[in-house]
Amino acid sequence: MTLNIGVIGTGAIGREHIRRITNGLSGGKIVAVTDVNMEAARAVVENFNLDAKIYPDDQSLVQSPDVDAILVTSWGPAHQQSVMAGIQAGKYVFCEKPLATTAAGCREIVEAEVKHGKRLVQVGFMRRYDAGYQQLKRAIDERFIGEPLMIHCAHRNPEVNDGYTTDMAITDTLIHEIDVLHWLINDDYESVQVSFPKKTRLASSHLRDPQIVTMETKGGVLIKAEIFVNCKYGYDIQCEVVGEEGVIKLPEVPSITFRKDAKLGNHLLMDWKERFIDAYDRELQDFIDSVSNGGEPQGPTAWDGYVAAVTADACVKAQESGQKESVEFGEKPELYGDSALHRV
Amino acid sequence: MTLNIGVIGTGAIGREHIRRITNGLSGGKIVAVTDVNMEAARAVVENFNLDAKIYPDDQSLVQSPDVDAILVTSWGPAHQQSVMAGIQAGKYVFCEKPLATTAAGCREIVEAEVKHGKRLVQVGFMRRYDAGYQQLKRAIDERFIGEPLMIHCAHRNPEVNDGYTTDMAITDTLIHEIDVLHWLINDDYESVQVSFPKKTRLASSHLRDPQIVTMETKGGVLIKAEIFVNCKYGYDIQCEVVGEEGVIKLPEVPSITFRKDAKLGNHLLMDWKERFIDAYDRELQDFIDSVSNGGEPQGPTAWDGYVAAVTADACVKAQESGQKESVEFGEKPELYGDSALHRV
Amino acid sequence: MTLNIGVIGTGAIGREHIRRITNGLSGGKIVAVTDVNMEAARAVVENFNLDAKIYPDDQSLVQSPDVDAILVTSWGPAHQQSVMAGIQAGKYVFCEKPLATTAAGCREIVEAEVKHGKRLVQVGFMRRYDAGYQQLKRAIDERFIGEPLMIHCAHRNPEVNDGYTTDMAITDTLIHEIDVLHWLINDDYESVQVSFPKKTRLASSHLRDPQIVTMETKGGVLIKAEIFVNCKYGYDIQCEVVGEEGVIKLPEVPSITFRKDAKLGNHLLMDWKERFIDAYDRELQDFIDSVSNGGEPQGPTAWDGYVAAVTADACVKAQESGQKESVEFGEKPELYGDSALHRV
Amino acid sequence: MTLNIGVIGTGAIGREHIRRITNGLSGGKIVAVTDVNMEAARAVVENFNLDAKIYPDDQSLVQSPDVDAILVTSWGPAHQQSVMAGIQAGKYVFCEKPLATTAAGCREIVEAEVKHGKRLVQVGFMRRYDAGYQQLKRAIDERFIGEPLMIHCAHRNPEVNDGYTTDMAITDTLIHEIDVLHWLINDDYESVQVSFPKKTRLASSHLRDPQIVTMETKGGVLIKAEIFVNCKYGYDIQCEVVGEEGVIKLPEVPSITFRKDAKLGNHLLMDWKERFIDAYDRELQDFIDSVSNGGEPQGPTAWDGYVAAVTADACVKAQESGQKESVEFGEKPELYGDSALHRV
Repeated sequence: MTLNIGVIGTGAIGREHIRRITNGLSGGKIVAVTDVNMEAARAVVENFNLDAKIYPDDQSLVQSPDVDAILVTSWGPAHQQSVMAGIQAGKYVFCEKPLATTAAGCREIVEAEVKHGKRLVQVGFMRRYDAGYQQLKRAIDERFIGEPLMIHCAHRNPEVNDGYTTDMAITDTLIHEIDVLHWLINDDYESVQVSFPKKTRLASSHLRDPQIVTMETKGGVLIKAEIFVNCKYGYDIQCEVVGEEGVIKLPEVPSITFRKDAKLGNHLLMDWKERFIDAYDRELQDFIDSVSNGGEPQGPTAWDGYVAAVTADACVKAQESGQKESVEFGEKPELYGDSALHRV
Repeated sequence: MTLNIGVIGTGAIGREHIRRITNGLSGGKIVAVTDVNMEAARAVVENFNLDAKIYPDDQSLVQSPDVDAILVTSWGPAHQQSVMAGIQAGKYVFCEKPLATTAAGCREIVEAEVKHGKRLVQVGFMRRYDAGYQQLKRAIDERFIGEPLMIHCAHRNPEVNDGYTTDMAITDTLIHEIDVLHWLINDDYESVQVSFPKKTRLASSHLRDPQIVTMETKGGVLIKAEIFVNCKYGYDIQCEVVGEEGVIKLPEVPSITFRKDAKLGNHLLMDWKERFIDAYDRELQDFIDSVSNGGEPQGPTAWDGYVAAVTADACVKAQESGQKESVEFGEKPELYGDSALHRV
Repeated sequence: MTLNIGVIGTGAIGREHIRRITNGLSGGKIVAVTDVNMEAARAVVENFNLDAKIYPDDQSLVQSPDVDAILVTSWGPAHQQSVMAGIQAGKYVFCEKPLATTAAGCREIVEAEVKHGKRLVQVGFMRRYDAGYQQLKRAIDERFIGEPLMIHCAHRNPEVNDGYTTDMAITDTLIHEIDVLHWLINDDYESVQVSFPKKTRLASSHLRDPQIVTMETKGGVLIKAEIFVNCKYGYDIQCEVVGEEGVIKLPEVPSITFRKDAKLGNHLLMDWKERFIDAYDRELQDFIDSVSNGGEPQGPTAWDGYVAAVTADACVKAQESGQKESVEFGEKPELYGDSALHRV
Repeated sequence: MTLNIGVIGTGAIGREHIRRITNGLSGGKIVAVTDVNMEAARAVVENFNLDAKIYPDDQSLVQSPDVDAILVTSWGPAHQQSVMAGIQAGKYVFCEKPLATTAAGCREIVEAEVKHGKRLVQVGFMRRYDAGYQQLKRAIDERFIGEPLMIHCAHRNPEVNDGYTTDMAITDTLIHEIDVLHWLINDDYESVQVSFPKKTRLASSHLRDPQIVTMETKGGVLIKAEIFVNCKYGYDIQCEVVGEEGVIKLPEVPSITFRKDAKLGNHLLMDWKERFIDAYDRELQDFIDSVSNGGEPQGPTAWDGYVAAVTADACVKAQESGQKESVEFGEKPELYGDSALHRV
C-alpha cells in the first residue's frame, strides 16, 4: 500500500525529503505540494517529475482527500499551523524540528493530538535512527552497563556563519542532544545550567562559544554537554554514558585507517550533512512503514517535541541567568505513556 | 520510471532480493516469478503480496514482454542457461554469483554479450558497494598512498558446517576477495599459490583450514589473503593496502566502544549476513537506477564473473599442486574496456 | 657523584622508594633510615642489605652530615615537621604527598623555603613524569591545538575500601588532577564546584560516588573532572584537552589488541599501582639527577604542594556548600616564578 | 653486589651502553675499556668520567681479574674472537648482534660454551624485552588464543641510505623478527622463502624493496613477514598472531590522540632509536641482575645467536633462488634445552 504524501514547504529540506521518498525509500508517493512561493512548488514538481498536484496553501493541501500524510518542511514559524491543520483533519504528520517555535505552541499541538485520541505526529529528530545511538540505547536497555549515572557528550561544528547567535547553540544545536539523551536513558530532565569556558578567538564577536550545558534528570543522571560550533577541526558528535558497571561510547564515523606522513589516523567529517544521512533515510522510511496501514508513528512524538521546546527554553534562560534553572513539563498524557521504552 | 523485474529462483537469496525491491529500494517492481518448485514461487507471490505473474520456467519468463530485467537467484548450476536466455532476449540481467559454474560457461556468456554489443549483465559481487571498500578505492585512485605494492587481507568466519570442503575456501569464500581486489587496484591477476599453515583443531577432519593464498598481479602487486573459516571469534574481513607512500586499511565494523570487566573494546559480528547488508541494498539499487533508462549496468560485469571463475580455477589447482599457477584470461573485449576505472 | 639519601618513614611507600633507589635507579644511595617504629627501620636495612645508619628520629637524621637529601615517606601528619627540618638544615627534600595536611602548613614550608632562598623541596606528584602527560604538555606548549579552552577528565578506580570517605575523593584522588592540570596548561585555579550525579549502588552507604568537580582557571579554562572510585570495570585515567584548533587526549595504557569471543579489545588495568610505575621511577631519578650537583629540583615545588592543598580545601568546601567556591593563593613568590613553563 | 664490566668497542652502541650502565641502570660498573682506536677509548673514559682502566686489546681486558663480564660492542667481524676469549676465561658476555658473522662462527661459540658447561653469553636481541612482545608471549604461553597457527608481521623503516643492500633486509632488519618470533611461539624454523612485490620507486636502484619472507616452523606455523625499508611514512613494527581461538596484536606505540585538521589520529615514530629504548635498558639490566650472583644470563643465548645466523643464511639463499629453502640447525645441546619456555 502506497502512502500518499503532501509536502508543505519546498525549500532545501523539503526537496531533500522529496528526493528521498521518490528515489530512495519505498512505500511513499508525493501527491501534493505547496509553498509560500508557488513558483518554487511548481519547479519542484517539474524537476522531480512528480505526479503531484500543487495546492495554494497548507489548509487546502491538508484537506485534500488525496493526501494521507503531510510532511511539514516549511520555515519554523509556520510549522504549528500546518501541524494543527493536519491533526484536525486526522492526517499523519511528519514535522521537521521545531514542532512549534514556542513551548506553548507545542503544548497546543499535544493537546489537540490528545483530544484526537491517537498519535499522528512524528517530529524530525533523526538521531534516534542513527545506528550508533541505537546500539547505545540497546546496551542501556539491556543493562549492559548497569544503571546509567552520567553522560559526557560533545557537539562540535568546524564553524558557523555570522548569523549564528549564542541562543542558537541551544535551539539549533543542543536541541538534538536534548531529544536523543532523554530517549536514550528513558528519563526526564529536571534542571539545566550553562557555563561559558574561555571563548575561542575563532568565534564571531557576538557569539559565546564554546558552552557547557549541565542537565540533571529526575533519576539523578548528570549530563555534561559541550557545544563548540567553531571547533575548526571537524564535525564531531561524541556521547559517552557512564554506568554502574561500565562505560559505553558512540562509535566514530567509520573511515579507512591510514598510516602516512608519520601519522596513524582516520579522516573526520567536515560537513554535518554526511553524519546522519542514513538516519534521515531511516526516520522517514519508519514513518511511512508505521502509518501505512493505519498504525501510529513510532518515532519522536509531539510530546517529545514539547519536551525539547521546554528544555531548550530553560537552557536559554540559564544562559542568561548563569543559574541552575528547573525544567517543568506538567503531566505527561497517557497517549505518550508506557510505549516510550519500546519505540524508537 | 519503474523497472519491471522477473525473478528466477525463489530460494533464500531470491526472497531476500524480492523483499529488498518491494520494501526497501525504489524504482523496481517484481512482475514475474518462477522456480523449479512452483509451490515455492506461488508462496512467495502470496507472502509478499506481489502483483506478479508466475511463469512455468525461465525461458517463458525471460521472453515475456512484461519483463524488463531478470534477477537470477536460482542454484548455481542453473545460472548460465538463464543468463544466456536473458542476453538473447536483450533483457538486463542481475545474476547472483557464480555467473556460471565453469570458466568456459562464463566465457560463453561474455561472448554472447559481446555479440549483443551492449553490457546487460551485472554479477552479484556486492563488496564493491561496501562503503569501506569504496573509501579504499577512492584513496587508491586519488593516489593517497602512491602506487600500491602489496595487499594483506583476511577473510575469517567463526565456523562452517561439515559440508564445507577445502576447495570451497576458494569458490565460496575467497571468490569475494578475488573480485574486489583486482577492481580495487585496477590490475589483473597473473599467478596464484596456496599455502597451508598448521590446521586448526576446530576444523572438520576433511577440511584444510586456514589457508593462505598468494596472488600476484601483472602490475607486480603481491596479495596475501588468509582464509580461515573456523576462526571461532567472529566474522572478520580485513584488507590493508601498502603503497609507496602509506598504508590504508578497511574500517572495522562500527560498534559502540565499551569499558567493562577490565576490557576496552568493541563487539565483533558473528554472522556474515550483517556485514555487507548495506552493500546488498546498494548493488541492487544501483542496478535498477543504471538500467532504468536504458543505460548499461555499472557494477561487476560478465567479464568480471569470468575473471573470478578463471582465477578461482587456478587457486583450486594451486591447492592441489602446491605450486605457483598462472592465470590466463585471454584478451579482454573492448566492451569491458576503459570504463573499468570509472565504474563501481 | 652519588647522592646520599636519608629515608624518614619505612612503610610501604618508603620501602618501594628504597627498592627503586637501590636496585633500579642510578646515582642515589640510602645512607640513613628512621621510622617511628625502630624495628621496622631495622628490618628494612636488613632486608635490602643497606649500608645505612639507623637514626632515632627525623631531626637527628636530617642533621647528619652524611645525608645530602631526605625522602619523606612517613604518614601524612608527620610530613610538615620533617620537611621544615630539612629546609632548616639546607638539605634537599623529596616529600610524598601531601606536603602538609593543611594549606597553612604548606604555606609555612613555602615561606621557610623562600627565606632559605633556594628551592630544595620536590613533592611526589608523579603524573607530571608520565610519558602521556608529558606528550600532552609538549603539544600544548607547542600550541598544537592553539589556546586550551576546556579539559574533560576522569579518574576511575574499580573500588575502594569502606574507610574511604567523600572528602577523600578530593584529598586522595582528585589531588593528582589538581596538581597535573594547572601544570599542563600553565594556569591557576580561580574557582571550584562539585556536583553529585546519581550514586552507584556499589559505593558504601556513607560515600557519595561518583562526583563531578568543575574547576575554572584565571585564564578561563573550564575543567570537568569526573571522580568515580567504584566504577568496577578498571583503573582508568582519562584526560582530554579541547583547544581552539583541535583536541588532544591522553593515550590509553598500551596493551596487546585481541580479537576473541566476538570482541575486539584491549585489557585495562585493575590495579592503580601499575599505571604510573614508570612515572615513579622517573620522578625520583629526576630528583636525584637535578640535585646531585647542587642544582634545584625540577619537579613539583613546595608552592605546587601549597596550591594543591588550597585547591583541595576549596573543593571539600564546595562538596558541602553545593556552591561555586573561590580559590585564593595569595601572591606567588618569585622563587617559583617564571621557570614554571620549563620545568617538569 | 656490583658487576664489574669491561667494554670491547667504544663506538656509538658501546657508548650508548656505557651511558646506560653509568647513568641509568643499577648494579653494574664500567671498570675496563678497549677499542681498536685507543684515542676513542680514552675519550670515552674521560667524557663519562669513568673509573675504568684502558686495555690495549680484547684479550688483555678479558683476562683482567678486575673484569666480571664483558660487553662486546665492537664491529661485527670482531665479535666472535672476543666472545670466544670471554668464554675461555669463564667471563659473562653480553654480545651485540651478530654473535658472529657466519653460522659456523656462531656454532663454534655454542660448542665452546657447551664445553664450558654453563651459559655465559647473552646476545643483544632486545625485542624480547619489549613490553608489547612480552604481553604477546604471556598471552601465547597462557593459551589465550589457543594454539598459534599463523603470524603476520611487518618491519617498516621510513628510508635507508644508499649503502643498504638487498641481503641487509635479512641480516640487519629481519634478523630481529627471526629472533623474536621463534621465542614467541617456542618453535623452530623449518623452511623459508622470499617474494618480491612491485618495487617502490623510492628505493635505490640496486635494492629490492619491499620483500615478503615466508617462514614455516616445525610445528607448522606459517609466518609472513613484510620488510619494507623505504616505506616513507614511519618506523613501524607490526606483529599479529592468529591462533585457534583468537588473534592478538602488538600494541601501537602509545601517543596522544589528536583531532585536528579533519583527522583523528596519533603520531608515529620516524626514528627507530625511540621504538625499543626501554627494551635496551631492560635487556642490559636483566643481564646484570641475572649474572651478578653467579647465575646464568636469562636472555637470548648463544644458541639463539646461532639460530638467527642459520636462518638468515637460508633467507639470503632464498632471495637468490626464489625457492623454498630448508633451515637446518642440527641438534640443540641440552645446555639450551628446556628452559626456553621460562626465560626471556
